[in-house]
Amino acid sequence: MGRVGRLSTPHGDVTTPTLMPVVDPSDVILSPKEMRHEFDAELVMTNAYLTRRCFGEKAIKHGIHGVLDYDGPIATDSGGYQILRYGDVDVSPEEIVHYQDAIAPDIATILDVPTGVRATRERAVETVRITLERAKQAVELRSNPKVMWCGPVQGGLFSELVVQSAREIGKLDYQLHAIGSPVELLEEYRYAELVDLVMTAKQHLPLDRPTHLFGAGHPMMFALAVAMGCDLFDSAAYVLYARDDRYMTSEGTFRLDELSYLPCECPVCVAHSPNELRCVSQDGRIKLLARHNLHATFGELRRIRQAIIDGSLGAYLEMRCRAHPRLLEGLRRLVMYRDFIGRFDPVTKPSAFCYLGEESVDCPEVVRHRRRLEKRYDPPPMPILALLPAFESGHPKLEEPNQTHLVRLVPPFGVVPEELEEVYPLGQFQVPRELDAIQIKSVTEALSRFLERYGGRYERVLLFNDERRWGNALVDACEKVKEKLKIIQL
Amino acid sequence: MGRVGRLSTPHGDVTTPTLMPVVDPSDVILSPKEMRHEFDAELVMTNAYLTRRCFGEKAIKHGIHGVLDYDGPIATDSGGYQILRYGDVDVSPEEIVHYQDAIAPDIATILDVPTGVRATRERAVETVRITLERAKQAVELRSNPKVMWCGPVQGGLFSELVVQSAREIGKLDYQLHAIGSPVELLEEYRYAELVDLVMTAKQHLPLDRPTHLFGAGHPMMFALAVAMGCDLFDSAAYVLYARDDRYMTSEGTFRLDELSYLPCECPVCVAHSPNELRCVSQDGRIKLLARHNLHATFGELRRIRQAIIDGSLGAYLEMRCRAHPRLLEGLRRLVMYRDFIGRFDPVTKPSAFCYLGEESVDCPEVVRHRRRLEKRYDPPPMPILALLPAFESGHPKLEEPNQTHLVRLVPPFGVVPEELEEVYPLGQFQVPRELDAIQIKSVTEALSRFLERYGGRYERVLLFNDERRWGNALVDACEKVKEKLKIIQL
Repeated sequence: MGRVGRLSTPHGDVTTPTLMPVVDPSDVILSPKEMRHEFDAELVMTNAYLTRRCFGEKAIKHGIHGVLDYDGPIATDSGGYQILRYGDVDVSPEEIVHYQDAIAPDIATILDVPTGVRATRERAVETVRITLERAKQAVELRSNPKVMWCGPVQGGLFSELVVQSAREIGKLDYQLHAIGSPVELLEEYRYAELVDLVMTAKQHLPLDRPTHLFGAGHPMMFALAVAMGCDLFDSAAYVLYARDDRYMTSEGTFRLDELSYLPCECPVCVAHSPNELRCVSQDGRIKLLARHNLHATFGELRRIRQAIIDGSLGAYLEMRCRAHPRLLEGLRRLVMYRDFIGRFDPVTKPSAFCYLGEESVDCPEVVRHRRRLEKRYDPPPMPILALLPAFESGHPKLEEPNQTHLVRLVPPFGVVPEELEEVYPLGQFQVPRELDAIQIKSVTEALSRFLERYGGRYERVLLFNDERRWGNALVDACEKVKEKLKIIQL
Repeated sequence: MGRVGRLSTPHGDVTTPTLMPVVDPSDVILSPKEMRHEFDAELVMTNAYLTRRCFGEKAIKHGIHGVLDYDGPIATDSGGYQILRYGDVDVSPEEIVHYQDAIAPDIATILDVPTGVRATRERAVETVRITLERAKQAVELRSNPKVMWCGPVQGGLFSELVVQSAREIGKLDYQLHAIGSPVELLEEYRYAELVDLVMTAKQHLPLDRPTHLFGAGHPMMFALAVAMGCDLFDSAAYVLYARDDRYMTSEGTFRLDELSYLPCECPVCVAHSPNELRCVSQDGRIKLLARHNLHATFGELRRIRQAIIDGSLGAYLEMRCRAHPRLLEGLRRLVMYRDFIGRFDPVTKPSAFCYLGEESVDCPEVVRHRRRLEKRYDPPPMPILALLPAFESGHPKLEEPNQTHLVRLVPPFGVVPEELEEVYPLGQFQVPRELDAIQIKSVTEALSRFLERYGGRYERVLLFNDERRWGNALVDACEKVKEKLKIIQL
């Protein structure tokens, strides 16, 4: 479901997936112009609620672009995060809609009520109800046609509420949607629950509208979020982490005082040693670390975009989710949504399929092959079946080639009849030849099933066996046809 | 076996693991000074054979430091690579020893005869014999005490020859050793065979001498090589790839014309788009790509060094080897050397143990726990055994806590008696709670074994079972004690 997109706004186009760095209008560490120039950050986010408190009428006069001194795309949030943190805000949902229309960001957000992850069911129902009510009201109140509006989904850990929230808001006139309440899940590395939240919402939102994952700003989870169809991230994390001497990488977070080497090649990190960074004045250090954090963030986004274009996001995700066992937990949860995800997976891709561990068995490519073989395939009428395990180069010598149906045994795909070998990715895969138990099982299960269905049609079955690699597994899987089986040791 | 070291040379200290960028003295793309300044490359390598051909006596007069206009550490190779590529060189092994003593690099290399990977056994025997003969001769010929000498191991794919070569050269007076012939294996992604070559050599070389992996210069395999105890890499790959518009990353190689985004945060990549790079003049582009390639290389080396210091190189390796199925193949081969590797693995580490897939089951930490439990452990004399699966927080309510021996069931460690819970890493681990089949097996096998040995000593066995997570696996593993088993569903 990962996608590279282009979002057109009155102040220019934005390539997604991207991060909207959050700028505090009253305390600018890196200006939007600097961020555009140094990081190619195309879209920044600021808080309409804080803007109103600090700048009030002045922002209406100059517009948010004037306040931030930036003529590129700007998005505004509206205080939902402040509600989550501090319980309430001193502005009404109507006021903040009017105010955003007046300061005219490119993207605006209604004042939702975040569910959070600690809400009771009763409270969660309430947050969903109020958020939806406000979303409907805002559609009526909106007066500036140049502003695109983002409608948030709430519901937190109550999946039936997330379903309801996503379905209802998806029917309203919004140009984007946000998925609310992930912040605590992200902070606590609860990626499996994050996957449930995002996938539940995505299954019931209009997929053609860009999806914003509220408050997600750590590069280590971007690949996972993008693979679920998230297009926009926003975060002040680059500054908040920097203030706390924390150093982000796409593999996790380091504390500056624990680092002996800077594990990054960004301009900040090649120009400084950890000691030099530690000796800079606090203000200078915050700015340097914020710059590093943004470089790490946008570098990861470029890697992800390139992987999407190469058709290798799945492989990238399997690697990236090895950065932390909790991410691997998230990946394993994501596998449970394979049917939905598979619907959006391209049938051919520019790059070879890669087996990178047991999660690869549930990749859309593999699931699709097995399903199609099950539903759409019928073997040609030939008297001899020859079974040839993968990694044996070339054709084996067959005594009666014209009478023989050659079927390759390829982990993790299972059985691959030779007439399908040109179909992607059956002729384009990279698989470790040191087999694990799951690779072997992927073949033996598929082979047993194949022989159960079609074994009776063949007069003879030849198994080219490589015991060193497969042990007895292939012979055992041929149980159904053992009367007519001939084993040829390779 | 991965290690961060300091190599002292007459021209300064060098932190290892590191790459020695190869400089062609007659065609300098990036000067040693630039490389020192921009990449913190502490040690460069050049070819004594080519230096002799291009500069002859002049290099003797000015020394290699004068020729390269660099007063930092310099290593020289001596034409072995040219023999591998072109069959022979027009210099004798004696001449090149004398010449290197005269031009006085910090590290010099004898003229070995590379075995390569296509040699017959007869030819391989010959390359090992001649290389050893020359190594012995060079020890006699050497006259400059300031020069450290590197003695290469040959033997290629013939492991008994590699053993012999490593053993014999390890007895001679050399300060460093190189492992020869990996270039073709690297070019063809034959990482499993590379692991066999390097591990065979390392098991028979003196481990206190730095090990140089000849001609290895791609960052994607540094983690694997460092985990095998390689300290030095050398390569002209950064330039050769650049000339061919190839772009290195620690996750693999891209062709510049295939890139829509630059998947890197180095100073070159944040200052250019792929199109801008493509439009630069060829000379300019080679230099820019060479700089990117070196940034990617030294960034990866910093990540690896930091991981070694954090005690997390194993986890880093598991992630990195997901960059390509062939690397995963290499990792799986490396697992077979776990007994040797385990001997050098610190018993405690600063970071938590991470389970990142089935290869984690064979990590030194896990193997060590199982072995010690087998050999050194005896349970305390208590009448009741309580078995508690991992991920259940806190203690269960026990009716007779003073009579009960609590044993936790923790994948991939197996059984963890409570009195050992403070021993690293049994109290410090991160494991996905979405269990895979291998995690479950790691517990059930260890539990069966434990109950077989000690089950008879207990009067009663309580199993706190979580069927949702474990199915019947735990109950089945308690077969031996089923008469006295009480199952408490969680």
